Amino acid sequence: MILGAAGMIGRKLAARIAADGTVAGRPVSALHLADVTTPPVPAGLPGRVTAEAVDLASADAAARLLAGRPDLILHLAAVVSGEAETDFDKGYAVNLDGTRALLEAVSVAGDWRPRLVFASSLAVFGPPFPARIPDDFAPQPATSYGTQKLICELLINDYTRRGLIDGLSLRLPTICIRPGAPNRAASGFFSAILREPLAGLPADLPVPESTRHYFASPRSAVGFFLHAAALDTAGLDHRRALVMPGLSATVEEQIEALRAAAGDAAVARIRRSEDPLVARIVAGWGADYEASRARSLGFTAETAMDQIVAAHVEDELGGRIA
Amino acid sequence: MILGAAGMIGRKLAARIAADGTVAGRPVSALHLADVTTPPVPAGLPGRVTAEAVDLASADAAARLLAGRPDLILHLAAVVSGEAETDFDKGYAVNLDGTRALLEAVSVAGDWRPRLVFASSLAVFGPPFPARIPDDFAPQPATSYGTQKLICELLINDYTRRGLIDGLSLRLPTICIRPGAPNRAASGFFSAILREPLAGLPADLPVPESTRHYFASPRSAVGFFLHAAALDTAGLDHRRALVMPGLSATVEEQIEALRAAAGDAAVARIRRSEDPLVARIVAGWGADYEASRARSLGFTAETAMDQIVAAHVEDELGGRIA
Repeated sequence: MILGAAGMIGRKLAARIAADGTVAGRPVSALHLADVTTPPVPAGLPGRVTAEAVDLASADAAARLLAGRPDLILHLAAVVSGEAETDFDKGYAVNLDGTRALLEAVSVAGDWRPRLVFASSLAVFGPPFPARIPDDFAPQPATSYGTQKLICELLINDYTRRGLIDGLSLRLPTICIRPGAPNRAASGFFSAILREPLAGLPADLPVPESTRHYFASPRSAVGFFLHAAALDTAGLDHRRALVMPGLSATVEEQIEALRAAAGDAAVARIRRSEDPLVARIVAGWGADYEASRARSLGFTAETAMDQIVAAHVEDELGGRIA
Repeated sequence: MILGAAGMIGRKLAARIAADGTVAGRPVSALHLADVTTPPVPAGLPGRVTAEAVDLASADAAARLLAGRPDLILHLAAVVSGEAETDFDKGYAVNLDGTRALLEAVSVAGDWRPRLVFASSLAVFGPPFPARIPDDFAPQPATSYGTQKLICELLINDYTRRGLIDGLSLRLPTICIRPGAPNRAASGFFSAILREPLAGLPADLPVPESTRHYFASPRSAVGFFLHAAALDTAGLDHRRALVMPGLSATVEEQIEALRAAAGDAAVARIRRSEDPLVARIVAGWGADYEASRARSLGFTAETAMDQIVAAHVEDELGGRIA
């Protein structure tokens, strides 16, 4: 089952699982996709895919969704950061209560202990940050979204400790290059300054080129979930929240990777357009994470910005640069 | 308002507030006491005390309780650690949902932003521990109770950040000497080996004398809540969970304080009775905390075991040792 299967990573995960026909080395007998809008049905698993629109925050939605007792639940359903901040009640209803309803629906079953992989976020952390953030840095969320994600992690740890589920929470880096149209998220420019010039379009850069941030490609994000689905958790204790590996890079390094892939003409499409508000928001985010525990468990991500650009060109542009 | 006003600290808080007639330098115009059983009405505030039995986990209880819009909410209502572990649903219903209902009841009011002082616990932390635990040690609860307390702290931080309440969470040390009859809590012996001999009764010691733990007296606990009620929070950010100061001491130091107060005859009433299960549970608890932030904010506790013994003799025994 994939919850949040209409989102960017959810769709890629569904497509990958349908194409592989297996997860964690086992054939996929059924794939259940759900989101607030009906998710697209990927090719490759004829007759074995169910796609439906469900509001996880509505009464009994979780119990009904889970009636088929999937072995694996990939839970990416969430109200995003900005909306959780502007709509306080909706953020808690979906991001906290929705997840808790899922956990409750599993735990009442008694004889069913699925693997649950939860899309958490580095927003569980808040400033002030050291230059490189260790795995045991104390989470102090600075947003309602980060608070909700951290609470879900704690619930998943406790339900796992009690033997009710087999949970893992993946604290995801900023996904770059995010495909699709520019959005108004404060982090959107990190993708836009690469994606738009690669497509022959202009993009605004609102922060200094020295700005450092922490990235992984959509391809890596899909890999995180599939690796978590297959992970042997027998040797782990109940502390199941993992900082995912990523690439710490500056905007300057992003620009040089763009130049290497698409030349000076592409770089010239980036317009300096300082935005102190965006710069201030970004300054409140961590720039680098050790991710030692996840790396030791075999999670991997890109190690150079060139690889992140190449993944986008291959996966989204069919190898063609404008 | 005091929630959990029938509990040991709740009763002492109510008695102290009634005797003082003031809190945070302001006269008490009304004192509302609530618990699952009707709390005792303290002397000293005739006509201004309401005491009622309410189950915080029941529907609309929080909204009804808070209809009088108290300026100060001292929230000590909780299912205790052992019961939260054996009754999973009840622990979450009271310790998490009950607190959240309180926060919601306050936040819908809009033009009312009370000080809320929450009784949290050092159970938000889990092993492995350093010898002396700093304030920024990452919380990793090892029990459902600790999970619930940490989630409430996070909610209180977020509601405070949004300007909906003015919250403070006090992570309390083990209270020693806890008055009353011996109980079956794993930590109970830390009080019993002092309290029972001081009353002329025998007590069992289930751990080695080298065992170190972190204590504050009931008198200090009352002081923590009253100091938090009066604290100027204008200079604080939204990180409102504070490790309370305490005394780190070994069982041997406890025994020597008993000897100094009541002589060898009292010490002879302690019976060595090793209990590997209790020893193992206690080994999973932190032995010392820096509490730097709380100390810098003016919170104080005992600095020697003699003071903890003296507080009990004065407050519980009328100065008389058996």
